[in-house]
Amino acid sequence: MENRLSELKTYLKQNDWQGGVITSRNNIFYLSGFDYEPHERFVGIFIFPEKDPLFVLPNMEVSMLLENNWNAPYLGYEDSENIWEKLEGYLGEFGEIENFAVENSQITFSTIKKLQALLPNGEFQNIDEKLSKMRMVKSEKEIENLRVAAEFADFAIGVGINALKEGISELEVLGEIEYQLKKKGIREMSFSAMVLFGENASNPHGVTGENTLQKGDSVIFDLGVKYNGYSSDITRTVFFKETNEQMENIYNTVLQANLAAIEKCKVGNKIGEIDKVARKVISGEGYQKYFPHRIGHGLGIDVHEEPSLHANNHETLIKGMVLTVEPGIYISTLGGVRIEDDIVITENGVEILTKFSKELQIVKG
Amino acid sequence: MENRLSELKTYLKQNDWQGGVITSRNNIFYLSGFDYEPHERFVGIFIFPEKDPLFVLPNMEVSMLLENNWNAPYLGYEDSENIWEKLEGYLGEFGEIENFAVENSQITFSTIKKLQALLPNGEFQNIDEKLSKMRMVKSEKEIENLRVAAEFADFAIGVGINALKEGISELEVLGEIEYQLKKKGIREMSFSAMVLFGENASNPHGVTGENTLQKGDSVIFDLGVKYNGYSSDITRTVFFKETNEQMENIYNTVLQANLAAIEKCKVGNKIGEIDKVARKVISGEGYQKYFPHRIGHGLGIDVHEEPSLHANNHETLIKGMVLTVEPGIYISTLGGVRIEDDIVITENGVEILTKFSKELQIVKG
Repeated sequence: MENRLSELKTYLKQNDWQGGVITSRNNIFYLSGFDYEPHERFVGIFIFPEKDPLFVLPNMEVSMLLENNWNAPYLGYEDSENIWEKLEGYLGEFGEIENFAVENSQITFSTIKKLQALLPNGEFQNIDEKLSKMRMVKSEKEIENLRVAAEFADFAIGVGINALKEGISELEVLGEIEYQLKKKGIREMSFSAMVLFGENASNPHGVTGENTLQKGDSVIFDLGVKYNGYSSDITRTVFFKETNEQMENIYNTVLQANLAAIEKCKVGNKIGEIDKVARKVISGEGYQKYFPHRIGHGLGIDVHEEPSLHANNHETLIKGMVLTVEPGIYISTLGGVRIEDDIVITENGVEILTKFSKELQIVKG
Repeated sequence: MENRLSELKTYLKQNDWQGGVITSRNNIFYLSGFDYEPHERFVGIFIFPEKDPLFVLPNMEVSMLLENNWNAPYLGYEDSENIWEKLEGYLGEFGEIENFAVENSQITFSTIKKLQALLPNGEFQNIDEKLSKMRMVKSEKEIENLRVAAEFADFAIGVGINALKEGISELEVLGEIEYQLKKKGIREMSFSAMVLFGENASNPHGVTGENTLQKGDSVIFDLGVKYNGYSSDITRTVFFKETNEQMENIYNTVLQANLAAIEKCKVGNKIGEIDKVARKVISGEGYQKYFPHRIGHGLGIDVHEEPSLHANNHETLIKGMVLTVEPGIYISTLGGVRIEDDIVITENGVEILTKFSKELQIVKG
């Protein structure tokens, strides 16, 4: 954590920016290990090129901050206090600041207006890209958390498949999955999980609902958990009781696309190649217009983060990136198939974090 | 919905503002009935004093918008298009705009910068307060959704109490509640629900975890569901197997505070009085320092919205407001008690939406 804050300090220095503030929950967690949903209350880490950072937060959260081993200055405030006035008094040198870093894509206009009043001579500079770049390459400890998150995702797929039986609803299967995860101590999913049957599985907007399972349905599970603040994101597709030749062909095409894309995940390769090779496999079978989304995205604290794995991304793969690889084919009259893995770019290739079998499975129920 | 957009139109006219844009998910839902999590994609309703509103959204969402009966203009865009350039071409008159309304507390600085480029002569004006005020008073249809959301909250408390048994974990009880709700078709909780046992129930930061239930524990359930986009929020406290005289006294004090506060909920009364009367009951028993939060908040699409029910709120109650009333006493060595209801301000008093019994209950398990 301290290294991350030092890196930001150096970055401010290099850019000749005299200060900055980090206000988004996930970047605060990344920089400090402190995770807290402040709702309307202000929380932020002020950073400076030459001084220690200053953590600003409600007084009642200070004990939690210290439990997270924060050992730089902090400034607490009561609900009855105006933190902006307090900050002005506390940090006299705001008047000297000409360039001040903020997260453009996260900070609200209200907070900008408060900062404008504090910084009469300040211009705002965007620190989004620097933080995305830092977060894009994971440490060994982050990868360990992502590994465990993926193990729970594998477990959840198993629970979901075991719950399938004729007439059960999508929501009931999801309820069973989340129940079994809670029994294992997992409180939070990494996003609103999806269990989709039949035609609903062929809808890119499919929402888990009261749809019931019928013979011949394809079943998509797309889910993940949060573990120590880190996310997993897996998709598996199975068929209920029976399927037909065309769906088998679609399944095998998606699986080949998934494998070919993972094969491209090597240090130094262009990111766009991952999408291109998967699209080539799918086009080879004539399904190009049924694969309407990018091949994947970065994965970490956020379930969607940098890099974006679309065909026009010309950046190269770096050791320590963690990515999803998730080709899919969706045909509204037939059903849908998507197969998604979480992978780490390693020195010599990849480590695949999601290990649930990808062989075509027809569930007896 | 159309009435709401007309009201904003009139508001722009009255303020001599030449345009505005609504970008937050919940205000877009309030104004259009269209609910969509856009992630990084831009979605907004542009509003004008003299013209129809314009809904801007990704092309792939247009069919969903039309299903929601949007019958004013819209502008769709592809991922490969730059929506800001497209908007500039589409709406030539942006150059004439001097005052442009935005939601200061919701809109990001990135979006403000895009708008600044579109509006060379524009100054931003804050429309937050107007929208909060509109949303604060609910229509009959909104109240009907809140009523059903509260019925499911009552149901959930019953499930939770039935699940209590020696050694069960907080997360297991929560898993059971969410499972039974999903069986009834409820996909989403209105916030991260809490089941807290014993000492954890006495912690205002208590997080549902692997804590197991022991004889004598107080048990707090604080939860709600989303129904047709509207939220419920209930708290009930029970005791497991036994309790003691002091906890009984605390329970009865909280209950009296809850009843006295609800008694104050009448059209024309000052909002601050609700908090004050509850605090008076609690102080009367010497527990004032163990009631560290406001008595409640507005409830609607958001689980926390206007008005805020703190002692210094001098506004008056209006027919159609929907509020939570939730006194609590938390003593770290003993446990905690909170009792929370959802109520509607009616012409002659209140309608209490949450109906689960508030009598002191010792669960046998």
